[in-house]
This record gives sequence, structure tokens and C-alpha cells, in this order.
Amino acid sequence: MQTINPVSQESQLEQDETTGAERMLMAARDAGAEVCFANPGTTEMPLVAALDTVPGIRAVLGLFEGVCTGAADGYGRMTGKPALTLLHLGPGFANGIANLHNARRARTPIVNIVGDHASWHLQYDAPLTSDIHSLARPVSAMVRTIESPADIEPDTIDAFNAAMSAPGSIATLVFPVDYQQAPAVSRAGEARPSSRERGFQEARVEAVARAIEAGQKVVFLLGGGALSECGQRAAGRIGAASGARFFSETFPARTERGGGLPDIDRLPYFPEKAIEQLDAADLVVLVETIAPVAYFGYEGLPSMLVDERRLMVLADVAECGERALLSLAQRLGADAADSGKPTARYAIPDAVLDAATIGKVLANALPDEAIVSVEGGTCGYPFVTASASAARHTILTNTGGAIGQGLPVALGAAIACPHRRVFALQSDGSAQYTIQSLWTMARERLPIVILIASNRRYGILQTELRRAGSVDFGPRARALTELDNPPFDWMALAAGYGVPAVRASSTRALESALTDALEHQGGPFLIEMMLP
Amino acid sequence: MQTINPVSQESQLEQDETTGAERMLMAARDAGAEVCFANPGTTEMPLVAALDTVPGIRAVLGLFEGVCTGAADGYGRMTGKPALTLLHLGPGFANGIANLHNARRARTPIVNIVGDHASWHLQYDAPLTSDIHSLARPVSAMVRTIESPADIEPDTIDAFNAAMSAPGSIATLVFPVDYQQAPAVSRAGEARPSSRERGFQEARVEAVARAIEAGQKVVFLLGGGALSECGQRAAGRIGAASGARFFSETFPARTERGGGLPDIDRLPYFPEKAIEQLDAADLVVLVETIAPVAYFGYEGLPSMLVDERRLMVLADVAECGERALLSLAQRLGADAADSGKPTARYAIPDAVLDAATIGKVLANALPDEAIVSVEGGTCGYPFVTASASAARHTILTNTGGAIGQGLPVALGAAIACPHRRVFALQSDGSAQYTIQSLWTMARERLPIVILIASNRRYGILQTELRRAGSVDFGPRARALTELDNPPFDWMALAAGYGVPAVRASSTRALESALTDALEHQGGPFLIEMMLP
Repeated sequence: MQTINPVSQESQLEQDETTGAERMLMAARDAGAEVCFANPGTTEMPLVAALDTVPGIRAVLGLFEGVCTGAADGYGRMTGKPALTLLHLGPGFANGIANLHNARRARTPIVNIVGDHASWHLQYDAPLTSDIHSLARPVSAMVRTIESPADIEPDTIDAFNAAMSAPGSIATLVFPVDYQQAPAVSRAGEARPSSRERGFQEARVEAVARAIEAGQKVVFLLGGGALSECGQRAAGRIGAASGARFFSETFPARTERGGGLPDIDRLPYFPEKAIEQLDAADLVVLVETIAPVAYFGYEGLPSMLVDERRLMVLADVAECGERALLSLAQRLGADAADSGKPTARYAIPDAVLDAATIGKVLANALPDEAIVSVEGGTCGYPFVTASASAARHTILTNTGGAIGQGLPVALGAAIACPHRRVFALQSDGSAQYTIQSLWTMARERLPIVILIASNRRYGILQTELRRAGSVDFGPRARALTELDNPPFDWMALAAGYGVPAVRASSTRALESALTDALEHQGGPFLIEMMLP
Repeated sequence: MQTINPVSQESQLEQDETTGAERMLMAARDAGAEVCFANPGTTEMPLVAALDTVPGIRAVLGLFEGVCTGAADGYGRMTGKPALTLLHLGPGFANGIANLHNARRARTPIVNIVGDHASWHLQYDAPLTSDIHSLARPVSAMVRTIESPADIEPDTIDAFNAAMSAPGSIATLVFPVDYQQAPAVSRAGEARPSSRERGFQEARVEAVARAIEAGQKVVFLLGGGALSECGQRAAGRIGAASGARFFSETFPARTERGGGLPDIDRLPYFPEKAIEQLDAADLVVLVETIAPVAYFGYEGLPSMLVDERRLMVLADVAECGERALLSLAQRLGADAADSGKPTARYAIPDAVLDAATIGKVLANALPDEAIVSVEGGTCGYPFVTASASAARHTILTNTGGAIGQGLPVALGAAIACPHRRVFALQSDGSAQYTIQSLWTMARERLPIVILIASNRRYGILQTELRRAGSVDFGPRARALTELDNPPFDWMALAAGYGVPAVRASSTRALESALTDALEHQGGPFLIEMMLP
């Protein structure tokens, strides 16, 4: 039977009737949403129109969905609250999954709105139809299709509550376009968004305190909110009083660094080095992080980097590690000044660039309250090591290993913090996955300094091939791990998206480029750092 | 308990022992695989190394996974057999989903190989771990994790058989890295890949013949193999003998056109126009396509474009439409010359460019046996209409609506058919989703002419907003559908990836640019076509 699709009652009602799309945006705004990172299509057009009629939500366009989801991750890490993303059906959502994977590992709150076919059209399996729930579940703590106009408001509030429940997580709402268009139906007495108050357990504090008092050698591993300024200062006092050592997890979602904070470096990436650090302790204490696991499995090495008998939890990932550290410092009487690292500038001779030098030059150049989004093995580790003595800054890393995260996260952080300078320290290979981020940075005039570590290869893969015993790569293995044929012309790519750019091959040239970049106020600025 | 991961026996065996990775590539090669579109990571390194030790499979690197899956789609459409893709865990696979969605709708055979953590490492939920099956199922007819070294060969053969079963489909194999590294275990007497022989039903031919003989006005809707040269010629003879009319489905995976073939245009996109065409007939006969459905649901219009009582199936999508058409022509005694459209050149005055003119200029310029990958509403329809009188060519369209398909499909088609000239007729907005395709085109020196229809907006979305009643867009709706702030600099983007490019603003300039492009033999060439 060929049936005619229903016409919504909207046209028969008052002109000022609120649509479902408007009602959702009002509910989202009331729950705290301020920004929507959008790459909409036909089934999101009522929501696009509603962004004009419901004031208060900034719409930021991405040319590719991974830009939107990565930006929501960066925004959520800096503000602690969810941005909206607006994505087009299953394939549009799919393009955003990789950066949602990273956001899930970062425990960033995000609310995805995915438009879908009209509820009565879905059964016909039109070309863009797909199983959105199956795609969304691996990255979403909550996935729900809005089943009626009356559910729009409560489902939106549920999504915000899910995203903001401890630890932060991702909620995905599938919103059929007919319910976006139709008049909204309000339900009285719905719950408001719940607030997020995280505690800690005194018994765990006491157990860790007793282990320290018993003379055990302790290494603390910090993640989440334990890496706040306040958490790190408490850690510094505990360290000064007890001799305990501290690492951040290898890929922290957000860590404060420099400006006199204690020097809490990242746990090394490769398992041999990490085990060496952890084996020096009798006890490894976890604070808002999970037990350390090898990034990949390697034959002849353990996957669990610490035997669980040597593990103790001060705060789990749903608890407040910062308050647990403060309580532990108090319990230990560790109220002396913390062992903060003094700020200092590196003296750097002029030379060709290498990863270690780049880290120091950037550390010298950071203005106070900078944000640095770090992606890529080449320059990330040396920079973080060097930046302990820089001005106070915030570091955001790639938490889930899905590459193409660094540029969008920098974008989202810049939207979240318009008065802070943002840097993206970025490997060239991984920058390519979400290269379209440059355009949104230019469009929104975001003062982001993009530093491309240009070594024209997938360096980590060549390292891994060598670890696996391939000393002489064959021509295909070489071709699949090198990016020099042709090399990217970063000056041209930046220009293509409206971003000014310069190339630097020496320390002096990089220093000069960074000075120029920081004087450039009207938008992003790209520096290609030439590496051997 | 902290356990040490097992060491594979490989090192204890003969040096010439075959690894699991090598065994998979041998099985794939024996099943017909000639190309692997790869974006590998750490968990695919043994496969990367094996591409050097197992000869016969060409490895093509993409900078982004959607380039790889879209290229596999283009390759499969042109060759009728699966390419391999090599993707990195769940997030890498996720980046390839959008173009796999299109390939699924095109019924293209593809075999995806997804590396995974070592089987003993998976339980620790390391950062890159995710539910790959949940991600893969919506686009894969078969998803399987290889569970032991003995399963590598039979699972690979099963995947090829699944991909090649009628109609073509997608098989996804998840391959833990420890089984890639370990010595392979061979099983005797495994089934070889099955061949693909598709039939048709004489009773359906007879039923359609009788309806025609009874004087019913018939419209045929052709898809799949029914759009081959042979199928279209049979259609032309049937049309000449009976007065029946023919359309291709709106988004054919592959259709032959021009060079004297009958003029079988696409069924219009918007439902009103499609219904107008279909309602003129008493009977709509489906040949290797499904019943026509509106692309999106519109209030007050049907989703099913034809009442099912007026539908008849000559061949379903798993059958051979070409043979069914030949049989019908014979049954009707339609052996006269078909009503082919004579080739002719358009006379085109010099003027600023518009979509209709572009279609004619390109139709004039097509060399014999060209392949045209068409993506985007702006220029696609007028070109296909115009190209009926061009030299013989093959058209590939966006079958599933996930944009970012046109450039990768052109890339894959050029790999499949090195002696044919390939054109990508591409809207500017959709080109951005897989812009990295340009680099692989340059790297592989593929003679692809990329035609960017540069109107600096998402034209289809503005059309849909107007359909939904928004006459005056608000500033946010305008901002979310326009791409002019800043405009892309296509000359720079092309240069960034090593592709020469020119800009054309008039018909003469476009003709001249096409001449230059066709003389350029060493690789791709981009033309930005400036539209108002």
C-alpha cells in the first residue's frame, strides 16, 4: 500500500507554537549547553532553523564530523560541561566516532544530537538509513531515539544528566525529523538537570596514609581531576613530606603544568620504561585513574604494568581525586610548602630542529594560562618534560589513540576559553585526519598557534616495526609508513583554509615564528617545524 | 595477577615459516585480491611487513580511512571483485564507515581487514579497545574475529565468498595481531572461493511480456548489472518494439552511457518529479533494483513512490538483470536495432559557468571510455542528462548519501582501470570530507581530472530549508549552510597535496582547462569551476 505521509499539525496551530526542535534547544540551553558543533544535513534542518529562534547557543560549523566531535571533547575538557554536536544520520555520526572514542576515554561530557528520517519514513530503508544505535553504543553511555514529541524535553534532560554523571560520559539522542518539525508537547514537573557532586572515601585515605607511615615506597598515578592545580599542589606536599613519587597517567585528558607546580610527568609510553618506574615502588596508588595497562600487547611483557597486589586505590574515576589528595595531605600533616618546580627559561643554541629542542623552545614561549593540545609521539613527550618549568599552562592529550584529535580539541578549547592562547603541538601524519579543522579555526577567528612537527613519516609505526624485528623495511612497508612522496606543502594547505603560515627549520627561526604567531591576534597561525 | 604475555613460537621454528599475516595475504591473493587500500597502525604491522614478502598485492596508502574504503568501492564497482582494506582497530574502522555505507548500497564487494589487539591483551581494555563488531555490523554482511591461527585461511576464504555472493557485499575480518605474527597453521581441503553465477526467472520474463502485450504502459527502472552496455541495448530494443520507457535508479552504482547507447536517464531525485514520471505508467518494472523510495520523507507525499500494486519485478537485486532483459527482448521479438542516442557535440556560447553549461562542456570533452565519478546535487544531474550524446563512458554515483564519496571512488576506479581517463565531478562541500584523496592520487600518479563545482555553499541544504518553509534564513541557518567565510582556496589545497590546478570562470576557460588536463598525463589535475 502506498500511503501519504502525515502532515504535522503545526500549520493549523498558532504561529508562535514552539516546535520540537526549539523545545530541545531550550531544554539543552537550560541544562547548560552554550555551544553546538554542527555538521548538519537535511534531517537536521528544523534544528538549524531553531538555532536562530532559540537564542543562547553558539553554532560552530565543521566541514567534517570528526572536527565537531573532537571540538566538543576539547570544549568539555576545559569547561567541565557538555557541548552539543549536531550530526547527520548514521554516516554523519560514524564520521564522528573516532573522536568520540577519545572523548569517552577522556571522560568528557558530550551530548550528540543525530537527526534521523521521519518516524514514518524509516521503515522504507531509504539510502541514508542505517543502524545508528549499533554505531553509537561503543562510544555512548546512553543512546536513545526520541519516540514521541512528549519525550523531547525529558529525553534531552536525561541526556544531560547522563553526560554529567560522574565520571563524564557521552549521551547520544536520535531525533526523527518529524518530531523536530511538529509542535512540542510539554510535560509538567520534569526533573531538572542534576548537579555533579563527587566525593571520596575516608577509609581509602586512611589505608594509603598507613602504608606511607609504614615506610612503603609509594608511586602515585594521577588522572582526571587529581591533575588540577589544587590536586597537584596537594601531591607536591605529600611528596615533600613522605618521599612518595608522582606520575600523571600517560594520556591525561587535562593536566595543569608549569608556573611553580610540582613536576608531575607522564608515565612513559612503552611498557619497559613504565615498568621500570613502577617497579621502583612497593605500592602504586591510583587517583582518579585506572590500573596502568600497556598501550599495545607485546610478547614477553605483561599487559598489566603493575601486579594487582601492589595496587591501591585512593580515588576511583567516579570519585574526586583532588579532595582525596587534600584529605591525605592533611592526614599526613603535609602542610609545608609543596616542592614546586621553579619557572625558568632554557638557554637554547641556534641549531636545526629536533624534538627535544622544539619542546624547550615552546616551553620558553608559552604565555601565562596557555592551553596546549598535544598529539603525536614525535614532539609530545619531550615538550611535556620540558614544560614543567614553563609559565602556567594546561595540557590536553590524545586519550584514546584515535588520531586526528589534536586540532579539533584545540579548536574546542579555544571556543571554551576565548581569553587564553591555545597551541596545537601536532604530528604531521595525524593532523591529516581532521585537517578541515583549520577552516573552522579561521572562520571563528580563533587565536590558535598550530605547530606541525613535519618529519614526513608515521614515526611511531617505523618504531613499532623495529620493535617487531623488522630492521630493514621492504619497499611496501617503507611506502606505507612514509609521507614524503609527495611531501605535504603545509604553507599551501594552511592558505587553502585561510590560515597564515610560516616554515621554521632552526631554533631561532622557530622562536621568531612563535613571536610572530603570538602577535597575530585575528585568528590561527600555522608553523611548520622541519624535522630530519 | 600480573601475567607475562606469551612469546609466539615463531622464533623457535624454521626461518622460512609462514606467518599468519602472510597466510592471509596468500589466501586473499588466491581469491583474487590485487589491491589493498591501507591506513595501518601498530596492530597491522605484521600485515604491512607481509605485503613485502607475499608478492602480487598492490598496497595503496590513504591518509584517512574514508579514502581507503571509498577507493575500495570504486575499485570494486569497476572490476566486480573485492579490494582489501587495511584499517586500524575500531576507531580506524569507524573512519571508514561512511564510505562503506555507500559501498553497501552500491552492493560492491569489499573485504576489510581490521587489526586488533593481541588476543591476550584485549581483556585489559587498553585505550584503543572498542566494540568493533558493533561498529562493523551496520555496514557488513559478515563480521568475524579470527579466533585461532588455524582459522586464518578458512575465514579469509569465507570473507571473499561472502563479499562475492550475489549481490556483492562487505565482509569484515578482525585479525588479532598475535595471530598475524604467529606461524600459520594450514588446514587441508578447504573450499576454494566460489564463483558468482547469477540467473533470472523465466516466469517473471513471461509475466512482464504479457503485461506489455496486453497494452499496459510500462516504465522500467534499471539498477545493478541491468545498466551494462548489453542490458541497456536490450532495453533499447524493448523500448523500440513496445514503447516502454526506461530510467536508471536515481543513484546507480555504475552505469554505461553515451557512445550510441539508449538515453536512459536517472529517475528524478525529488519525489514530486519522480512520481510524475512513474504515474504516467500503468506498471513499473524493477530490474536489479528495489522499489523506488523517497530519499527523505516529506509531509503530504508518499515515501513509496509507486503503489506496490503497480510494481512488477523482472529481476531482483541478487539476479542477473542483464540476462533477464535479453530474454525479455527475445520473448517480445524485439530484435530490431535499438533506439540509441547518436553521439553529438553541443554548441556552447562563451558565458559564465552554470550547472547546465558545465554538464555540456564536460560531455563534449569526454574521451572514449572515460569514467566519471559524480558527487553533489549542483552539477550531477545536468551532466548525466547532457552526457547521453557524449562518447562512451561509465558513470559512478553516490549510492548511499554519505558525502565524501566522489574523490575516493574516482581514485579506486583509476587504480582499477589504468588505461581509462577518470573524472571526478564534485561539489565543493562534499569534497571536503575526504579531501586527503588528492594526496593519494598524486602519489600514485593517477590521471584523474577533478572538477570542483565551487558555489561555496551546501546548496542542497538551502534547497531543503526552502522546501521546509524557511524563505528568509536566519543568520545561524545561513552560516551553517554557506562556505564563503572564508572561501576555500582550491588552488592552494591542490598544491598542498601535489596536484596541479587551474580556475575556470567561463565556458571557454573550462574547455581550455579540460584540454590542458587531458594533455597532463603524469597524475591528477584539478579544475575549480567558479559558480555564482
